[in-house]
Amino acid sequence: MQLGLIGLGKMGGNMRERLRRAGHDVVGYDRNPDVADVASLAELVERLDAPRVVWVMVPAGDATRQTVEELGELLSEGDVVVDGGNSRFTDDKVHAEKLAPKGIGYVDCGVSGGVWGLQNGYALMVGGSAEHVAKAQPIFDALKPEGEFGFVHAGGVGAGHYTKMVHNGIEYGMMQAYAEGFELLEASEIVDDVPGAIKSWRKGTVIQSWLLDLLDRALDDDPKLAKIAGYAADSGEGRWTVEEAIRLGVPLNVISASLFARFGSRQEESPTMKAVAALRHQFGGHAVKEDADG
Amino acid sequence: MQLGLIGLGKMGGNMRERLRRAGHDVVGYDRNPDVADVASLAELVERLDAPRVVWVMVPAGDATRQTVEELGELLSEGDVVVDGGNSRFTDDKVHAEKLAPKGIGYVDCGVSGGVWGLQNGYALMVGGSAEHVAKAQPIFDALKPEGEFGFVHAGGVGAGHYTKMVHNGIEYGMMQAYAEGFELLEASEIVDDVPGAIKSWRKGTVIQSWLLDLLDRALDDDPKLAKIAGYAADSGEGRWTVEEAIRLGVPLNVISASLFARFGSRQEESPTMKAVAALRHQFGGHAVKEDADG
Amino acid sequence: MQLGLIGLGKMGGNMRERLRRAGHDVVGYDRNPDVADVASLAELVERLDAPRVVWVMVPAGDATRQTVEELGELLSEGDVVVDGGNSRFTDDKVHAEKLAPKGIGYVDCGVSGGVWGLQNGYALMVGGSAEHVAKAQPIFDALKPEGEFGFVHAGGVGAGHYTKMVHNGIEYGMMQAYAEGFELLEASEIVDDVPGAIKSWRKGTVIQSWLLDLLDRALDDDPKLAKIAGYAADSGEGRWTVEEAIRLGVPLNVISASLFARFGSRQEESPTMKAVAALRHQFGGHAVKEDADG
Amino acid sequence: MQLGLIGLGKMGGNMRERLRRAGHDVVGYDRNPDVADVASLAELVERLDAPRVVWVMVPAGDATRQTVEELGELLSEGDVVVDGGNSRFTDDKVHAEKLAPKGIGYVDCGVSGGVWGLQNGYALMVGGSAEHVAKAQPIFDALKPEGEFGFVHAGGVGAGHYTKMVHNGIEYGMMQAYAEGFELLEASEIVDDVPGAIKSWRKGTVIQSWLLDLLDRALDDDPKLAKIAGYAADSGEGRWTVEEAIRLGVPLNVISASLFARFGSRQEESPTMKAVAALRHQFGGHAVKEDADG
Repeated sequence: MQLGLIGLGKMGGNMRERLRRAGHDVVGYDRNPDVADVASLAELVERLDAPRVVWVMVPAGDATRQTVEELGELLSEGDVVVDGGNSRFTDDKVHAEKLAPKGIGYVDCGVSGGVWGLQNGYALMVGGSAEHVAKAQPIFDALKPEGEFGFVHAGGVGAGHYTKMVHNGIEYGMMQAYAEGFELLEASEIVDDVPGAIKSWRKGTVIQSWLLDLLDRALDDDPKLAKIAGYAADSGEGRWTVEEAIRLGVPLNVISASLFARFGSRQEESPTMKAVAALRHQFGGHAVKEDADG
Repeated sequence: MQLGLIGLGKMGGNMRERLRRAGHDVVGYDRNPDVADVASLAELVERLDAPRVVWVMVPAGDATRQTVEELGELLSEGDVVVDGGNSRFTDDKVHAEKLAPKGIGYVDCGVSGGVWGLQNGYALMVGGSAEHVAKAQPIFDALKPEGEFGFVHAGGVGAGHYTKMVHNGIEYGMMQAYAEGFELLEASEIVDDVPGAIKSWRKGTVIQSWLLDLLDRALDDDPKLAKIAGYAADSGEGRWTVEEAIRLGVPLNVISASLFARFGSRQEESPTMKAVAALRHQFGGHAVKEDADG
Repeated sequence: MQLGLIGLGKMGGNMRERLRRAGHDVVGYDRNPDVADVASLAELVERLDAPRVVWVMVPAGDATRQTVEELGELLSEGDVVVDGGNSRFTDDKVHAEKLAPKGIGYVDCGVSGGVWGLQNGYALMVGGSAEHVAKAQPIFDALKPEGEFGFVHAGGVGAGHYTKMVHNGIEYGMMQAYAEGFELLEASEIVDDVPGAIKSWRKGTVIQSWLLDLLDRALDDDPKLAKIAGYAADSGEGRWTVEEAIRLGVPLNVISASLFARFGSRQEESPTMKAVAALRHQFGGHAVKEDADG
Repeated sequence: MQLGLIGLGKMGGNMRERLRRAGHDVVGYDRNPDVADVASLAELVERLDAPRVVWVMVPAGDATRQTVEELGELLSEGDVVVDGGNSRFTDDKVHAEKLAPKGIGYVDCGVSGGVWGLQNGYALMVGGSAEHVAKAQPIFDALKPEGEFGFVHAGGVGAGHYTKMVHNGIEYGMMQAYAEGFELLEASEIVDDVPGAIKSWRKGTVIQSWLLDLLDRALDDDPKLAKIAGYAADSGEGRWTVEEAIRLGVPLNVISASLFARFGSRQEESPTMKAVAALRHQFGGHAVKEDADG
C-alpha cells in the first residue's frame, strides 16, 4: 500500500527501507532534501491517493505538534495520521481532537527496536480506534518482527504510547538490576572473571535476556568498562512512567530508583550529600570549635 | 565418567537423569530409599573408583555441612567434592578447609535452571582450583546447556556460589521491574489489553527475556492474576546479595528495594505504616481532643 | 489592621481567633452561616476599607480558583489577596496573572502548624513581591510563632507554596525514618521496652524532634499501636515534591520511597507482588506440571 | 560513687569532666599518659573499692574486646563492666559470657550526644540485668540530660547497643530527608532564599528538630555549602541496622537508601552507571557501527 512518511532520520530512514523491501510504496519527506522524496508536506499529500495514511516520525513535542497541525490542514476526511515518535501519551488526545472535526483519524504508535529494527523488525504498540488502526495494518505488519509477537493494539488513543512508556520504565529497572550486579561482582575479591560470569549467564539462567546479551557484548569490547563514563542520560519515558505512578498511586520503587540513579550520574557534586556532610560536621568535633569562636 | 550424587530431590533427580542420558555412570544416594541407588554414603564411596568425584545436592546449611563432614571421613586423597546446593559462599571456605588436610579437593557450583534444566541444561557457576575443577569437567559439560554459554569457572573456592548469588539478586530486580510495569498498566485507564501488551513485548523490544516469556505464560493462564496471592517468599541469595553490598560499600538500591518488597508482601500489617498513621493522627484533629482531655 | 478571611474551618477558624487575640479586626466569611461574620463575599469586601487584604483559606483546586476569580471582580487596585491554602505552586502564577491586570496584588502563603497553631503560632512561608507582602506583614507577624523563626519571604509568586511543599516532602521522609526504626525495634527479640527506648530519645540524642515527641505521645496511648491501622493517606504535597524532583532531575530516593510506602499501605493486594509470585511459580515446580498437561 | 573509666578521648574525657562536676570520684585510664590518672589497668582496678564499676570507652572491635578480656582477669565477683563504646550488639553477648563465669556483671550502653554532651548531658541506652544496671545507675544519672528523658534500660545484654544502632539508622534517614529537601530548593528556580526558608522551619513546623537547627547553623556559615564536599562517611551502625532488617525480614527502604547514598557519595565513578551507559550505547547508534566493523 501507499504510505506517506515524515521524518527520515536514523529511525525513519530505516523504516522506509524495511517497508520498501516489503513491497510498500513509501513517499518520504524530511527537512533534509538529500534524503527526502518530495519537497514539502503539501507535495507528499498530493502524491498519495485518498484515503491516505501518513506516518509522523519526528521529535516529540513541538515538532510533532506542528506537523500534526499542518497535516490537519492538508489531509481530508478518511485519512489517518500515525504518530510513531516518542510523544507523551497525553499529547495523543490533543492531536486526535485536533484532527477529528475534519474526519481525519489518529493512531499513536510506540516503536521499539532502535538500530536493530531494520533487520529484526520493530516492536509496535498501537492506540486508536479499530477502524483507524485497520487502515494502517499492512504497514504495521511489514514493520513488526515476524511471528506471533511484536505488535499490540493496546486500546484507544494514547494506549500505544502509554504501553511504550511502561516498556521503557521496565527497561530502566532491568538495566539498573544488571548494572548493580555487575558492580557487586567487580567490587568483590571473590570473583576473578567478571566478564566470564556474565557471559555464562546468557544461557540456562533465569536472567537470560537480550539486554544481557548486549552487556556481554559491551564487556567483550571493554572488560572493565574503562573507556565509558558512568553518565546516563534519560529520555522522557522514564520520567513519565514515574509521574504516572504518582498520579495513579502505584508504588514504583525500582523504576524510580533507576531513574534517580541516572539523575545522580549526571551530577558533578550532590547538594544532598553536601548537606549530609554538613550535618555530620555540625554534631562532630568541628562544631565545638566553631561554637567556641562564635 | 563415574559420579557419586548425594540428594535426589527435584533438582538432583533430574540431574542424574541428564547425566545418564549423556552416558555418565551416576551412583545416587538419598535418604529416601525409593530413589537411591545405594543404601549409605559409605556404600556410595565404595562403589566409585578412585579418584572419585562426589556431588552434594542437599539443602544448604546443616545438611550440606554434615554431608561434607561425613565425606571427609569416607573419601581419600585425590578425590573431589562438588557442592551444587545453594550454600552461602562463606560456607565454601569452611568446607574446603575441612577437606584440604586429607588431600580432598572442593569445588562449589551454583546451579540455575530449575525445572527446565533437564531439557535445556543447567547453567553452572563454578569456584575452586583449576586442578579440582578439571576433575569434574566432564560432568559440568554434560549438565550445562549446549553451546558457548552456561558455564563459568569464576574464581577460587566460593566464586561459584558468589556468582550464583549475584545472579539471583539481579533476578529479584528484574522480576520487580516487570511486576511494577504490570501494575502500572493494570492501574491505568488508558490501556485496555494488558496481557496483549506484555505478549507483544516478547519480540523486537529492549526488554525481551525468558522472564518476560514466563510472565506472558502466567497471564495466558490467568489474565488478571486473580488466582494468585501477592505473597513472595525469598531464598537466602537475595539477602546475601544485599549483605555483600553493605560489606563492600556498594549502592544497591534496586535489588534491595526488590528484597524489601518481598518482605512487605508477607506482612499482614505494616508496623512502619502504623507508626506513620499514628504520627498523622497526632498532628491532625484528634490530637487537640486528646490534648484537651489530658 | 483589618483582614478579610475566607474559609473558617478548623484552620481558618483558629487563625481568626489568634488574629483577634492580637488585636486585629478580622471579618470572616464561610459558606456555613453559623461561623461567618458576613453573608457573602461582596459584603466582606464592602466591610473592609481600601486598600484591603483578603486571606483565602479554602480547599486547594477548584474552591480556591473560584474564590480568587470572584475576588478579582470585587476587589480594587491596591488590594491584595493572600492564598493561605494548600495550592500547588503552579496555581499561584495563574492566580497572580488573573488579578494583576486590575492592579490587585497576590501573595501565596504556605501554612504549617495544624491544630497546634492557635497556641504556638503558625509557621508561614510566603511568596510574592516585596510590596504585596509588606501590606500583609502585620497579619503574618500575628500568626507566626514568637521569636526569630517561623516566617520567610522565600521569593516571588509561588515560592511560599513551593517552600511548604518541600517542607511536607521532608516530613514524609522523617516520619518514614522514625517508623522504620519503630518497626525494627518491634521486630527484634533483643529490645524489650520499645516505647521506653523511643521516649528516652526525646532528649540528648541526634534524633530529638517535635515529631519524635508526637510518636512518644502516640505510644503512651497505645504502646503497640494495636488500635491503629497501617493505612496512611497522602495530601498533594508529597506527590508534587516528587514530581518536581523529576522535572528538575534531582534524585529523591528517600522522599519518594516514603510516598510509595503510603501508596502501598492503601492497597489490599499488590498487583506487583502478584506478578512476582506468578513469575516464581513459573520457574518453580508448578510450571512443569502445567507444561506436561499443556 | 567511684568509677573506673577507660578511654579518655573526646568522648571519655568530657564524660569524666561531667561526672566529676556531679561529685563522682572518677579514676581514668588512657594509653596517653598526659590525660590518664593511672598508669595501667591494674593500677585502675587497685584504686577502686570493690564492688567496682568500670566503664570502657574505647573503639569498638579489637580494642574493646581486648580491654574486656584484661578486665576479666583483673576484676572480681560482684564487679560490673559497662561498655559505652559503639560495639555491635552481637559483641555484647560474647563479652557478657566471657565475664559471667567469674561473677563479673556486664552492661552495654549506647551513648549519644557527641560534643554537646558535656553541657547538655548524654542520652544513654542501656542493656543488661536489672542487678547490674542498678550498680551503675548513679553514673547513668549523672551523665544523662536533666529531666524525664535521655535514659532507658531497654532490655537484656545487647539491648542498649541495639537501641543506639536503631537510633543511628533513623538519624541516617532524617538527615537524608532534610538533605533531599535542601537540594530540591536549591535546584528550583522558584525559591530565592533557601537558607531563609530552612531557618524559618525551626519553629511552628512539623519538621522542627535539633538536626534542622544544625542544618540552619551550617547554612549560616556557608549558605550554599560551597566549602563542603558531598562526601559522607558512615560508621558501623547504619550498616548493622540494614543487616538487622535483612535478618528480621523488615522492609527498610528509607534507611537503606540513606546508607546507599553515603556509599555512592564516596565513589569517584559508579561502575553501575558505567554498565547502564554501556547498555545504552549497545542499543543506540554506535552498536550498528561496531556490528558492521566486527
